[in-house]
Amino acid sequence: MPTRVPESEFRERLAAVRERIGDAGADAGVWFGATSIEYLTGFDHIQTERPVVLAVTDDRVEVTVPRLEVERVQPNPRIDDVHHYFDYPGGKPIATAAEMLDGLDAETVAADSDGAPGVMGYEGPALSTFVDVESQSWVDRMRWAKSDVEVELVRESAKWANLAHRYLVDHTEPGAHPATTSQRASMEGSRAMLDALGDEYVPRTRGDGPVVAGYITGEQTALPHGHTVNRRIQEGDVLVTGASANVDGYHSELERTMFVGEPTDEQEHYFELMLEAQTIAIDALGPGVSISYVDEQVWSYFEEQGVTDLAQHHVGHNIGLGGHEPPYIDRGWDDHVDAGDAEMEPGHIYTIEPGIYTDTYGYRHSDTVAVTEDGTEMLTYFPRDLESNVIRT
Amino acid sequence: MPTRVPESEFRERLAAVRERIGDAGADAGVWFGATSIEYLTGFDHIQTERPVVLAVTDDRVEVTVPRLEVERVQPNPRIDDVHHYFDYPGGKPIATAAEMLDGLDAETVAADSDGAPGVMGYEGPALSTFVDVESQSWVDRMRWAKSDVEVELVRESAKWANLAHRYLVDHTEPGAHPATTSQRASMEGSRAMLDALGDEYVPRTRGDGPVVAGYITGEQTALPHGHTVNRRIQEGDVLVTGASANVDGYHSELERTMFVGEPTDEQEHYFELMLEAQTIAIDALGPGVSISYVDEQVWSYFEEQGVTDLAQHHVGHNIGLGGHEPPYIDRGWDDHVDAGDAEMEPGHIYTIEPGIYTDTYGYRHSDTVAVTEDGTEMLTYFPRDLESNVIRT
Repeated sequence: MPTRVPESEFRERLAAVRERIGDAGADAGVWFGATSIEYLTGFDHIQTERPVVLAVTDDRVEVTVPRLEVERVQPNPRIDDVHHYFDYPGGKPIATAAEMLDGLDAETVAADSDGAPGVMGYEGPALSTFVDVESQSWVDRMRWAKSDVEVELVRESAKWANLAHRYLVDHTEPGAHPATTSQRASMEGSRAMLDALGDEYVPRTRGDGPVVAGYITGEQTALPHGHTVNRRIQEGDVLVTGASANVDGYHSELERTMFVGEPTDEQEHYFELMLEAQTIAIDALGPGVSISYVDEQVWSYFEEQGVTDLAQHHVGHNIGLGGHEPPYIDRGWDDHVDAGDAEMEPGHIYTIEPGIYTDTYGYRHSDTVAVTEDGTEMLTYFPRDLESNVIRT
Repeated sequence: MPTRVPESEFRERLAAVRERIGDAGADAGVWFGATSIEYLTGFDHIQTERPVVLAVTDDRVEVTVPRLEVERVQPNPRIDDVHHYFDYPGGKPIATAAEMLDGLDAETVAADSDGAPGVMGYEGPALSTFVDVESQSWVDRMRWAKSDVEVELVRESAKWANLAHRYLVDHTEPGAHPATTSQRASMEGSRAMLDALGDEYVPRTRGDGPVVAGYITGEQTALPHGHTVNRRIQEGDVLVTGASANVDGYHSELERTMFVGEPTDEQEHYFELMLEAQTIAIDALGPGVSISYVDEQVWSYFEEQGVTDLAQHHVGHNIGLGGHEPPYIDRGWDDHVDAGDAEMEPGHIYTIEPGIYTDTYGYRHSDTVAVTEDGTEMLTYFPRDLESNVIRT
């Protein structure tokens, strides 16, 4: 089971963008987005106000980085040359990138944005001050359909997430602190993954482990983006858990609605309703299926049950290098995109997480499911049924 | 010691932007940035492809959110009305925000961007499709100088960071795994903060604790943005540590270069050189001081010592709601901004972290220092000297 992106994969990705560069009649493709740069070259970096600029031509891959990234990028076998400015704002990132492009005889480039994204703190000249810039979002679109290797990396992530999730359940009991049970499960899950993978492990974190597990408790579960509050776990608590692991940059998503002690009749009712909605969505997935259709199926079920006012979000999203990426399983998806982008394709990896939120508690499982050539494959596998999600006290 | 932003602070912030709205002749101020929205109202949210839009007029504060944030924002006492769309892309976030603005009779608005930032995944109409949009970055600029309360929150953060950093040192010994010592220190520091603050603690994390401590080891320290590798700590290791805590959204930064066992003469040499550079920077800080000047002082010292080729970045940055925010202590700062923005002001909070990077190891402390009316105040206080940073084995 691979635990890192192999060289062949980078060759294919670079070949694919080179084809698009040719089709666009551009001299080079240029990327400012950290995830796109990582996708094409394997060079991952923390995106800040200091721009990083990747240029790809027919026969060269070059990058402009701040001084502090030089030694991190230099050993990268896919990058032919590294240019740098000292720091920002004293250095001239875009001028340095323009010199790099000049050396590549690139006068017209197709870029993912016209300069570094301002939301990261960069304020300075646009790339079009120096060269002709056409806009493209090739990599964002290429990332929708994962290769077999990418699916395997997400599957590997799901394995370690499952382990940490099991540890989380083991540590959960009345009187325990939710932050501590969460952090302990993350620590133990991380250590297990590190010790199991040994030299195969690709470092991806700084002062932290690669596996995370945790939950929100009680009334916070009524909020899809709730917080972990400073209150011990008690008998009768509803939990909404979450677990993932970083495997060479790839993620999975596992969430469970759990009960500390026997659920009430009302809790059981909403749990089963949520579970049925999730099952409907999972069953609806597949190659060639309209993405909107899956959300519509769940919505129809909620209408039938008279609980549309308890739904607060669509069914799910894709996951891979990003924890949250398109396509989104949303009733508006088909209207949002061209016809060719409206259907599920082999390699799409969806989180399936329809939720029900009452005034007091929330109910949501999330599973990670790959669309295959002839169906689907569940990548997460922690049991979904009620009995498996009751923690006896 | 306050552990949350008080109501009076939000009143002052809103009053300050209202004055600017008036000066700009706009009908409303509009914000898409999550940190700006949090700064003005205390409503924090995870920024995704789902836009959140805040509008402030003379007498109203209203917000447009996706359905899943409605119950999180509704209890907020500073927000008068909450509008929502269901989800993205099926819902119409910017059209909903435009209706909100129409209800506020806002035909001309001053906004922090013309629609939701594309890098977060949003693709849709700009706000200027619906109303006249002028651009402003008022909150970004207001955040440079922290109020007394904000300084106290960062000071509180430094306290819990210091505790977790102490735990980290206690757990460090040959044979220990750096991921596990890091995660254990974070877990214990988080629990201490949660138990000490009790009901005063403001939840800010999800499935995790508010305190983080950790390090990179060995040759990774030669990379300013290195990773935690899968190798046990051994006698002779150099560590570059890091610790922080989230106190109602505010952060501090503490980093230390440490040695597992006695450092070599070369290691001691570079440590003392780095320490002197940091001391020069700390001594140079103060109200009315040119920001560039501080970086120049350190650079002059590096020139004197013949080690400019071992420097990889400028001296530091501001910290507060963001872990990394302007102004940056960079030799190019004064040229980058208007004259009025070139000097340090009371309330600026700087990380001071000049580094030295050899082929084998890196040497960097980072301290968090507030500029006051008549000087500076060190907010982090873990000892900086060599003896205190050698872990005897």
